[in-house]
Amino acid sequence: MAPGPVDHTLGDLAALVGGRAVGDADLPIRGVSTLEQAGPTDLGLLADRSFLSEVPTSEAGALLVSEEIERDAVGVLNRLVVTNPREAVVVLLGHFHPAPIIRAGVHPTAILGDRVSLGTDVTLGPYVVLEDDVTVGDRSVLYSHTVVRQGARIGDDSVAHPHVVLYPGVVVGSRTVLHSGVRVGVDGFGYTPSIDGTKKIPHVGQCVIGDDVEIGANTCIDRGSIGRTEIGEQAKLDNLVHIGHNVSVGAGSFLAAQFGSAGSVKIGARTMWGGQSGVADHVVVGDGARVASQAGVTEDVPAGETVAGFPARRIGDFNKAVAAMYRLAELRQRVRALERALKLGSSGKSTE
Amino acid sequence: MAPGPVDHTLGDLAALVGGRAVGDADLPIRGVSTLEQAGPTDLGLLADRSFLSEVPTSEAGALLVSEEIERDAVGVLNRLVVTNPREAVVVLLGHFHPAPIIRAGVHPTAILGDRVSLGTDVTLGPYVVLEDDVTVGDRSVLYSHTVVRQGARIGDDSVAHPHVVLYPGVVVGSRTVLHSGVRVGVDGFGYTPSIDGTKKIPHVGQCVIGDDVEIGANTCIDRGSIGRTEIGEQAKLDNLVHIGHNVSVGAGSFLAAQFGSAGSVKIGARTMWGGQSGVADHVVVGDGARVASQAGVTEDVPAGETVAGFPARRIGDFNKAVAAMYRLAELRQRVRALERALKLGSSGKSTE
Amino acid sequence: MAPGPVDHTLGDLAALVGGRAVGDADLPIRGVSTLEQAGPTDLGLLADRSFLSEVPTSEAGALLVSEEIERDAVGVLNRLVVTNPREAVVVLLGHFHPAPIIRAGVHPTAILGDRVSLGTDVTLGPYVVLEDDVTVGDRSVLYSHTVVRQGARIGDDSVAHPHVVLYPGVVVGSRTVLHSGVRVGVDGFGYTPSIDGTKKIPHVGQCVIGDDVEIGANTCIDRGSIGRTEIGEQAKLDNLVHIGHNVSVGAGSFLAAQFGSAGSVKIGARTMWGGQSGVADHVVVGDGARVASQAGVTEDVPAGETVAGFPARRIGDFNKAVAAMYRLAELRQRVRALERALKLGSSGKSTE
Repeated sequence: MAPGPVDHTLGDLAALVGGRAVGDADLPIRGVSTLEQAGPTDLGLLADRSFLSEVPTSEAGALLVSEEIERDAVGVLNRLVVTNPREAVVVLLGHFHPAPIIRAGVHPTAILGDRVSLGTDVTLGPYVVLEDDVTVGDRSVLYSHTVVRQGARIGDDSVAHPHVVLYPGVVVGSRTVLHSGVRVGVDGFGYTPSIDGTKKIPHVGQCVIGDDVEIGANTCIDRGSIGRTEIGEQAKLDNLVHIGHNVSVGAGSFLAAQFGSAGSVKIGARTMWGGQSGVADHVVVGDGARVASQAGVTEDVPAGETVAGFPARRIGDFNKAVAAMYRLAELRQRVRALERALKLGSSGKSTE
Repeated sequence: MAPGPVDHTLGDLAALVGGRAVGDADLPIRGVSTLEQAGPTDLGLLADRSFLSEVPTSEAGALLVSEEIERDAVGVLNRLVVTNPREAVVVLLGHFHPAPIIRAGVHPTAILGDRVSLGTDVTLGPYVVLEDDVTVGDRSVLYSHTVVRQGARIGDDSVAHPHVVLYPGVVVGSRTVLHSGVRVGVDGFGYTPSIDGTKKIPHVGQCVIGDDVEIGANTCIDRGSIGRTEIGEQAKLDNLVHIGHNVSVGAGSFLAAQFGSAGSVKIGARTMWGGQSGVADHVVVGDGARVASQAGVTEDVPAGETVAGFPARRIGDFNKAVAAMYRLAELRQRVRALERALKLGSSGKSTE
Repeated sequence: MAPGPVDHTLGDLAALVGGRAVGDADLPIRGVSTLEQAGPTDLGLLADRSFLSEVPTSEAGALLVSEEIERDAVGVLNRLVVTNPREAVVVLLGHFHPAPIIRAGVHPTAILGDRVSLGTDVTLGPYVVLEDDVTVGDRSVLYSHTVVRQGARIGDDSVAHPHVVLYPGVVVGSRTVLHSGVRVGVDGFGYTPSIDGTKKIPHVGQCVIGDDVEIGANTCIDRGSIGRTEIGEQAKLDNLVHIGHNVSVGAGSFLAAQFGSAGSVKIGARTMWGGQSGVADHVVVGDGARVASQAGVTEDVPAGETVAGFPARRIGDFNKAVAAMYRLAELRQRVRALERALKLGSSGKSTE
């Protein structure tokens, strides 16, 4: 977002973050950006040594830099020198981009069913639909077109971006953020054969999202068939993730984009999953486990283990196996040489 | 969903499903759940022997269990004993969770174009938009915000959950369920080079979804460029699936979450695809074929075959190749031993 | 879409595309389709020799065919013979399916915030929401329920299909098409550990989509944290793609369905990515690089290179390694034969 017409100088900002202005303290500064994209009225963030090579070509008006590497930066003369640039940038961003003022209140086009309970200072955007028996906690914000079906509940200080859909009876905690297009409480993918063809297993279970969770755009979470699907507190799900029925995701786990979990999987606390990784049904994954991008987990993973590949194996084993796989041509040559030395394998069957 | 204040006893429910109450027949029961999540007023489902180990720690008020394994279950004394617990649970769920009463009728905020044809007892939720020449069959339900574009048709007894979009001219059969965020009839990904840069191939073909299909949340189905995209009857698609232009999916096929099909693929009847699997354009996959999770099919698959890996191969071959790949270190050592025995390969070129 | 009641003859159409009618020039023709799906009033497209085998069983009323292969087609006697059938089909499709007349204007249910700027002949469908300070250029069309948040801008002649969401401050170019359910400018997946648990990195950067871009249904594009996410002009993104924060996608690149990019990736111009492929954070991919379906790129890719597999390698190396992997059983047998010849490995440790 374009920063507003706020007038700050390098010196003002140094005072704000408890840092030191070097060079032109009166330089007007209007934003913070990456070194590559910063312009003459921006602070360019020199977060660590790996970005030093970008300084000479940066058009930043000034550097935001630590004491430690300041001397090694060449080419931009104005600086805001601080102890920890990453901490300072959070303060500065809050300063340049104050939280938008949301016009609290219920938009006249929002539709509320019977027995809807709204906390204090709830915001409902245009065309929001809350069906019967829905509860929304204090200060929560539901943006345009969000639909909360019958009996679903949202805690305090939570946010649903435009176009979120909660199926009936879903429970969402407090301080939880649902990005645009999130679907929670969908019927799971469960069918049984029957005489008249495939029969759907009823999905009447619950779907419970904890506190302080963030769920990325267009992510889908199925409800339990019976029993529950649960996302633990502080879990973070990226865009386009799929969570099957009766899955539990432990507190503080990170699921990167396009991750997918089949049904009835138990994922421990503080696990980390790379993009496009997946896990088969009924697998148990221990606390703190880590899974590489695109890995496919088909068996239980012990706590703290790191795995990769399909079917997923310990990452050290995977890396060795892949390295060996790319050296197979050489191994085949060595075997050929042995065969020649022993006058074996010369029957023409070998294609080498 | 929290069960309502329905008053049932273990004895009542035994009569309902033609089973036998053991223990306290007057015990009030308010729902059915998994053994792990059941509470003191729930029946806990002991579906088969694999769940026996969960009984001692279950807080279920009573077990739903078969004659056959009843004697082996310890720790929960009240039981509802039946011939087939999986069948009984479907009856019980219907009892505890009667189908919600939908307030049939057209919500006053629904917008209908010209020449829209609605069957009897159609339900249109808030903010539904039906463009010109749309047809919706008897008893179909379109939930909030669903958009049906010009000339599209939906059969009888079908359901579109909130936020479904059908592009112009799409045809959806009867008794078909479209979950939230489904997009049907999207332009395919087809471009041709031209003198003025890339040119889009017009997508004027059809997109036809059969009867008794279920399509998961946020799944996207492209229309034909010319010709048709077709999803056969009784096919089941999970969440976040992608179907390219001019694909045909055979009747009764199961496509798990995040499956993706490139254009012009022909998928036979009763195939099964694991999560995150995919198939390249113009491939033909025979009836009853099965594809492992994350597999990438690049060549035709004969009927009844099971494949895995990328590029996908017969699953037996894949499993053997992977096993051998993880034993390569051992094979390399054996080759090294042979070289030593023959005094070969000692030139230092080998890194082992 | 069913062709309207337009009356054309084979002869008329030959005149239209500068071709030659063979057989019954008075045959009424109502559409163009694939050979497999064409009926007796359709032209069946015989695009190249690979479709010759479909002619004998086609029910097409006439063939659309080149001079070159006309003589080799048997079974359909009426023909429209042209120099280039693929070019002719674009003309014919435009004729049979004229662009729909859009009722320009702002639907009375569209909601406009303060200081919204609309160009000439802008179309806003039912229930569109434009927040404060939004700009929409001349002749752009925003279909039902699309939401454009505060300060976002759309150029001229662009289209947003139903249910698109643009987050605050997003910039979309001219002649760009956003399919249903696209989310642009989402907060990226960035967190840092802190004393009170995980802390979200503010995402206040920009998100800029160029001119002549097309973005598939339900695709999600994150904004920059600081700095920018950029999609270059003429880039084409398929359905269900994920683009992380601070990524740049070069002009004219093609990203097939379910592609995913982690954060801060630099993708060059005119690259091509297969379905379900992905790339890890901070990777740099050169102009014209090509990535196979399901490949996972973890290291920089030079311009013009083609890679496959996970972790991605040059496609030639990948293909050789896979081929060798599937011949490992044979290699193991050869090693066993050598061991026998040398009386090695007979200790029973070997499992073969």
